[in-house]
Amino acid sequence: MNPQYAEFLAAYRVIARLAEVGALLSWDQETCMPPNAVSDRAEQGSTIATEIHAKITDPAFAGLVNGLLQDASLSDEERVNVREAKRDIDKAINVPVSLVERLSQAATFAHEAWKKARAAGDFSLFKDHLQLLIDLKKEEAVCMGHGNRPYACFLDDHEPGCTEAELDRLFTPLRERLPPLIREITRVKRRLRKGFYSHDFSEAAQKGLCEYISDEMGVPRDRSRLDTAVHPFSTSFGQNDVRRTVRYKTNNPFESLYSAMHENGHALYDLNIAPALAQTPAGSAISLGIHESQSRFWENIVGRSRAFFEAYLPDMRRFFKKQLNGLGPADLYALANEVKVSYIRTEADEVTYNMHVILRYDIERALFDGSLALKDAPAEWNRLFEQYLSLKVDRISNGILQDVHWSGASFGYFPTYALGTMAAAQLAAACDKACGGLDTVIREKRLAAIREWLTGNVHRFGRLKTAAQVLRDATGDSLNPEAFFSYIEKKYAGLYGL
Amino acid sequence: MNPQYAEFLAAYRVIARLAEVGALLSWDQETCMPPNAVSDRAEQGSTIATEIHAKITDPAFAGLVNGLLQDASLSDEERVNVREAKRDIDKAINVPVSLVERLSQAATFAHEAWKKARAAGDFSLFKDHLQLLIDLKKEEAVCMGHGNRPYACFLDDHEPGCTEAELDRLFTPLRERLPPLIREITRVKRRLRKGFYSHDFSEAAQKGLCEYISDEMGVPRDRSRLDTAVHPFSTSFGQNDVRRTVRYKTNNPFESLYSAMHENGHALYDLNIAPALAQTPAGSAISLGIHESQSRFWENIVGRSRAFFEAYLPDMRRFFKKQLNGLGPADLYALANEVKVSYIRTEADEVTYNMHVILRYDIERALFDGSLALKDAPAEWNRLFEQYLSLKVDRISNGILQDVHWSGASFGYFPTYALGTMAAAQLAAACDKACGGLDTVIREKRLAAIREWLTGNVHRFGRLKTAAQVLRDATGDSLNPEAFFSYIEKKYAGLYGL
Repeated sequence: MNPQYAEFLAAYRVIARLAEVGALLSWDQETCMPPNAVSDRAEQGSTIATEIHAKITDPAFAGLVNGLLQDASLSDEERVNVREAKRDIDKAINVPVSLVERLSQAATFAHEAWKKARAAGDFSLFKDHLQLLIDLKKEEAVCMGHGNRPYACFLDDHEPGCTEAELDRLFTPLRERLPPLIREITRVKRRLRKGFYSHDFSEAAQKGLCEYISDEMGVPRDRSRLDTAVHPFSTSFGQNDVRRTVRYKTNNPFESLYSAMHENGHALYDLNIAPALAQTPAGSAISLGIHESQSRFWENIVGRSRAFFEAYLPDMRRFFKKQLNGLGPADLYALANEVKVSYIRTEADEVTYNMHVILRYDIERALFDGSLALKDAPAEWNRLFEQYLSLKVDRISNGILQDVHWSGASFGYFPTYALGTMAAAQLAAACDKACGGLDTVIREKRLAAIREWLTGNVHRFGRLKTAAQVLRDATGDSLNPEAFFSYIEKKYAGLYGL
Repeated sequence: MNPQYAEFLAAYRVIARLAEVGALLSWDQETCMPPNAVSDRAEQGSTIATEIHAKITDPAFAGLVNGLLQDASLSDEERVNVREAKRDIDKAINVPVSLVERLSQAATFAHEAWKKARAAGDFSLFKDHLQLLIDLKKEEAVCMGHGNRPYACFLDDHEPGCTEAELDRLFTPLRERLPPLIREITRVKRRLRKGFYSHDFSEAAQKGLCEYISDEMGVPRDRSRLDTAVHPFSTSFGQNDVRRTVRYKTNNPFESLYSAMHENGHALYDLNIAPALAQTPAGSAISLGIHESQSRFWENIVGRSRAFFEAYLPDMRRFFKKQLNGLGPADLYALANEVKVSYIRTEADEVTYNMHVILRYDIERALFDGSLALKDAPAEWNRLFEQYLSLKVDRISNGILQDVHWSGASFGYFPTYALGTMAAAQLAAACDKACGGLDTVIREKRLAAIREWLTGNVHRFGRLKTAAQVLRDATGDSLNPEAFFSYIEKKYAGLYGL
């Protein structure tokens, strides 16, 4: 190996380890930390962030990377590592620390203001904070050389290579075809065994079921653990330590089960990136959209399939004998796939979910390209919500104040949820062909076959392939909403007798 | 404030925060981490250790500290901070990183060898590893300018200011007076309600009792948490985040209760150092001996007192109604204070414990001053064990291979346990006078009075006073074994009718 390249990898390894330590600080804060330690933890986190920033912007490191960018002898893999490190350096050098700090501080205040505004149902309490975040994010885009198209800059942060034009191509069919489907479905009255939710599902039994399903999915217990957190998430501190969290509601075992399957999907991606890539720039997920495709695949396409209940109902009865008495796979399949338009994105079903996302995308993009003024945004939210989801917004806390992301200056993030949903369906269609029928595989409880296909076609590459290349190589097509429509139309036609 | 001093404090604060992060890595490893992540964790830990080392040895930092050492305008408190930082710098600069790494590596191998040797009952499997650790520690002492007296160097690491002469003064009376007391006690047959240990004490109920007693002792739930670990310990990540661990045996509620009280004693020290000292060199415990005095005070002097059972037996019944049926305070007091000579230091009672410690001290000191050859150490262990504890060592795994410390290159550590035991008794005698009788205070469940006295006389000073000053100011005397003898002779005369 080129000695400069070896030196580069060693330097990057330290940065990667520090990032893992930073992730542990966050995980512990959400799962274990005593409440009064918040300000200590903030300072510990910022100490680590400062160390990472210093190492990324160290002129010696930048010199190494710039030298390697000119080095024609590097392999493709080496080139990817150098390119990804260059992205980190550019971002760290181009965005001044003072702006990073102003953004972080503004987001802290904006988050508090958002909570108050939502409680009071008063957008004016949040508006100026949101405006400041928008202004600071525009300033950041200028620093990154995207002054004329700030939104493209944020999109690239979360979904490298994705453009607004690409989103137009993908989202236009969703805007056209989902709202009529939603109207059609919500007209049908379905008989559901709702008495199910009046049972008591103990936390211990739910945890048992989550652990059992995690074993079935192939999440190794010696490289992972499952904890409780208010907002379920998955994080990793290296390829042998992936932490997943869920929360438990004692009247509903689906929430923890599907959180676990969702987070397991994320975890399997992180766990199965090629070990040789560990602690290199290429050793992490290529994009949020691809990451989300993994969680959606397991949560929805596997976990909410009829075959899943046919296969796993006997196992579920081991944990919930009394509660599942008299229910068959068809009953659980119907319960787990109830379509119900609501105001809350995070509780939305597979059919309505994407329209929640596109609405947020439409508004945030318009705020950045100047076609929508912030003062008009609440009304625009309500107008689009009714258009997309056939429901009138009843109050502003269910409208523009519903979601937390903007209060944290997360712009360009929402679209990745819809990209992940579409990619999941497209990967599922390819996996279905490759493994001789997903339904059969699930019914025979051979989930390892699915995991192995995903590892072989997605996980192992890390950042060695772009998101577009991953999809093209795995499915023979670029990202295309048709697989999603075909999946959802067939599934819900059956469920709702359309 | 002197601007150089402010700059020094800011630089030290970063070092302190990194050390807290390092402590979180260790805590997580003992409580949460999946087993396969060990090597990832080792690398994360060494990344943080390397960062800390780089900051401590940064010439700019050393320049600041050296300048401040000459600054006559500093207050006493400021002077302590500068002096303690200077100790850290000297150690970091004088001991080459390569030696630190060789020691760490040798200890890793030695620990594995010790486990094998103990399992096989064969000292020869461990001997060369132990010799290497001794040689490397001698090398370290030379680097620190203690080439002629290596043991004094290690002693100073754990108990600053303590000398071998001081240990001779303190340990000689223990060597003379404890063995006859042990012989006397073990001749007496006591009637104990041993059926007690055949009950099942659920882990959940034990945890409930531990949390209840922690509340009584004033360990704040919003600044602390209690977890499970194989080897109970306490650690802190700043003054608002102290983690304690215990382990549960379902046939014995004393083990978790006294572990909790022991670790709470450590935790209260860390939690109650004056907040203004946080993240400064003076903001941590002055010595291991003083730290241990706090855990012993709560575990033994409070928790194993007759008054404790008189006060808390009704509360214990809330957790163990059936198991405690028919037992009175005197029964539990007798059970909790059973004296039984065993080979295992960590399971030893108050009377025999110190002799386990002194035996280890005698041997390790002799190994370093050259008066004992390693090949003769097993026989010397057995000879001293019988002399000190009136029991013949039955096998080498209960002899020189019993304890883990030497396999981790921890020399000079054992004496602090005995110092802590003696200091606890001396502090208790002073606290008894100050608060109008410890027994009364405990019987009336006014544990806050004890905690407040300890905070006022020990905790709050951090490193502002030396260990010797703390004791002198709190008790009017330097460390003196008489309080320990007086406590132990009175207590066990009563228990054993001597």
